[in-house]
Amino acid sequence: MHKRPVSRLLPLDLDAAQRKQLAQEAFEVIERLLGRRDHAPIFVPTPPQCIEAMQVAPPEGGTELPELLDRLQAAAECGWSKEHAGDLGFIPNGGLYSGVIAAMLAAGLHSFTGSAFEQPGLVALEESVLRWLGRVFGMPPATEGLLLSGGSLANQTAIVCARDRGDFAPDRSVAYLSERAHHSLPKAMHLCGIPAACIRSIRATAPGRIDTQSLLEEVERDRALGRHPWLIVGVAGSTDTGSVDDLSELAAIASRCGAWFHVDAAYGGMFALTGRGAARLQGIGAADSVAVNAHKGLFLPYGVAAVLVRHPGALARAHSGQGAYMRDVTRVPDLPNYFELGPELTRPFRGLLLWLPLHLHGVAGFRQALDRSLDLAQQAAARLRAIPGIEVLHEPELSIVAFCAAQGDATTQRILAVINGSGELRVSSTTLHGRTAIRLAFLHPRTGEPQIDAVEAAIRRALEAR
Amino acid sequence: MHKRPVSRLLPLDLDAAQRKQLAQEAFEVIERLLGRRDHAPIFVPTPPQCIEAMQVAPPEGGTELPELLDRLQAAAECGWSKEHAGDLGFIPNGGLYSGVIAAMLAAGLHSFTGSAFEQPGLVALEESVLRWLGRVFGMPPATEGLLLSGGSLANQTAIVCARDRGDFAPDRSVAYLSERAHHSLPKAMHLCGIPAACIRSIRATAPGRIDTQSLLEEVERDRALGRHPWLIVGVAGSTDTGSVDDLSELAAIASRCGAWFHVDAAYGGMFALTGRGAARLQGIGAADSVAVNAHKGLFLPYGVAAVLVRHPGALARAHSGQGAYMRDVTRVPDLPNYFELGPELTRPFRGLLLWLPLHLHGVAGFRQALDRSLDLAQQAAARLRAIPGIEVLHEPELSIVAFCAAQGDATTQRILAVINGSGELRVSSTTLHGRTAIRLAFLHPRTGEPQIDAVEAAIRRALEAR
Repeated sequence: MHKRPVSRLLPLDLDAAQRKQLAQEAFEVIERLLGRRDHAPIFVPTPPQCIEAMQVAPPEGGTELPELLDRLQAAAECGWSKEHAGDLGFIPNGGLYSGVIAAMLAAGLHSFTGSAFEQPGLVALEESVLRWLGRVFGMPPATEGLLLSGGSLANQTAIVCARDRGDFAPDRSVAYLSERAHHSLPKAMHLCGIPAACIRSIRATAPGRIDTQSLLEEVERDRALGRHPWLIVGVAGSTDTGSVDDLSELAAIASRCGAWFHVDAAYGGMFALTGRGAARLQGIGAADSVAVNAHKGLFLPYGVAAVLVRHPGALARAHSGQGAYMRDVTRVPDLPNYFELGPELTRPFRGLLLWLPLHLHGVAGFRQALDRSLDLAQQAAARLRAIPGIEVLHEPELSIVAFCAAQGDATTQRILAVINGSGELRVSSTTLHGRTAIRLAFLHPRTGEPQIDAVEAAIRRALEAR
Repeated sequence: MHKRPVSRLLPLDLDAAQRKQLAQEAFEVIERLLGRRDHAPIFVPTPPQCIEAMQVAPPEGGTELPELLDRLQAAAECGWSKEHAGDLGFIPNGGLYSGVIAAMLAAGLHSFTGSAFEQPGLVALEESVLRWLGRVFGMPPATEGLLLSGGSLANQTAIVCARDRGDFAPDRSVAYLSERAHHSLPKAMHLCGIPAACIRSIRATAPGRIDTQSLLEEVERDRALGRHPWLIVGVAGSTDTGSVDDLSELAAIASRCGAWFHVDAAYGGMFALTGRGAARLQGIGAADSVAVNAHKGLFLPYGVAAVLVRHPGALARAHSGQGAYMRDVTRVPDLPNYFELGPELTRPFRGLLLWLPLHLHGVAGFRQALDRSLDLAQQAAARLRAIPGIEVLHEPELSIVAFCAAQGDATTQRILAVINGSGELRVSSTTLHGRTAIRLAFLHPRTGEPQIDAVEAAIRRALEAR
């Protein structure tokens, strides 16, 4: 009944009044969802009829906007709410509203920043945030960077640079990763054609950091066998516990044995803006490459990460390509053609998603929110330690705390179920030292002490229910 | 003077009035840019002070929004305008406004569709457009798909699936590509670790299609030497001329020799919605994999492409990975976890960028605009043929026409300069049969006969200026 005949289709090229109506209605949908975010339960089961409604193929004739937005809103209200202040699962996303506006502008400006000669001013904007990121990590001024959709592609792009440096040989090159490294790293190596036999998983010490003694022993064993330590990966904020490898020590080892030193700082990197974070991340500035996610530590909408590579020309060597149709691509002094530095040609204008929020709120706003996340993790660890029967498994290094029940996995599982069944919290779990552990990950500007109170209350309820 | 002290920073967590102000001002910037798009010159040089202004690093304290938006608008108004109806360069982008709204909603819903259990309704939405795309190409119902940022990653993902099918051996597997294939294909192979020696460039016939006779000869030569034809790539819309390979014949050859048949339909794929396009693309439904860009033939904002793979499980086999922290990832019947099917874990909610415009305007709206682009190319070819001294180099197969001056490259270059200096047109050039050729690429809903008139007038001016 909402269907219009084909003759009344909304044309592809909208007039100003139609554009205003669309923008207004989209704004209101987002406001309605924001309005319910902290009151509605953090999880709502998705009714089968909602899934069915979303599986309908695009119709030949158009559909009225209000009907579409109702259907969309119904689907978006189900499942796990990611904008709830009680989201402590996996790595939360802060959902910065200024990032939403930046996403609208990035699409609406209709800009291609993949090559500098198209819109040099906007490529300069993108460079400005990449150079700023390099400075945040203490990397040299000549460091080059690229914005990608997430940590997986940022890690993969760094690995391709390392592989194409010239000394990689599949039969004798070896990469070393912490057993706590993110699974996207071995996956990226697989995608790059690096054999699994080239990868060594190095055990982590109790706090979750790579055991540098084990690493050294493995490196020496491989060298004695004529193999070449090719890549050492440091973790700056493990997904499990937020632990940070000893990056200075890894940099020194990599330097001694001629390996490329990559730091996966997807989750932890932006804590470098804080005093405590910078202390934990000491040594990151010596990396050959760093991956960092802006949709984590800068609270931006999903789809913005950076890879930074210390060696000018390394990205271009790995990613060059030519086509006859590219003869009109010209060079702009001091500005890169990003399509020559990474795996993408056409790509969204991601730089604006960083630039607008960073300039609007100022770096201090982000620094404060990150500091607050570190505070919350420390407070949570202290509060949990005071609960009889709860073991906090590590001193929080960044904003993640993992804990378990002294009574064993069954009790831990019960606590997990009670927390996630509370309607106001979401946490996730992992396996640490063979035990089931619950993770609290703080990285959301609206999360605060009320959420810690709620976690504590849920744990006490679960323990009393024995 | 616009600077606020740190104490007056706009907080990260905005209230409703602040959100409304941001949305309103962003909307107005886009409207101002849209208002000038067809009146302002298509190219405006970027002043050095604009580039300087954009290179400023994010400040410690915030900046007033109007000042930021002024700076952004100044930069966005420079360079080549991509939303001008006279943009016939490379492959134009239609800049659909409903896509801009979809981008705002995709960011504003704050949704993660990388795994089905987070928000099954929205993953179902994403599946609905992927399944629709598979049907548009005539692929079987079990075809699986994935949305990526562009054709480069879509091609790369297909190549990894082909590589990981199990019969790839770097010393004897061979891939066959048209010399007119997009450079992202050999680049993607390089990124996947496939040696350049595994790739054969096959010559194209005069219309720009792969010469299937040459292909067959190469295949037979390789097989006689004990090599294994591993991958055959078909081009469905070359960047140079919009030519389409004989996909039915390529499918038959691939089937006979056991090769994976990939079709790069990044530019041309969506023409399958039209009668003429479907006829040209005949055979695409037999492909093992297809890559298509929605930011080309569906006129969407940059950053939405799809890869479709005929064989259930092929994407997952190439892209699986595990981490201890993923133990709370559960499965939803009949809905995929996209992070298990592709190179990305966290990723933007790209499905909405297709779903909203397709449902809002209806498929018929897109079909009409694509048909119009085909018409315009045919009209342009006829008009250019009627100009003495102009050679149209091919019958347009899709929406691209390439031509040159009979007098030689110097004259063609002069024509190119006059067209691009007109202030209302942009075209690009390529090399065809050793000659410089100018390309007119029609793929913009607002482009029409006035732009063909302007091209003709510019050519006549250039020829008369001799």
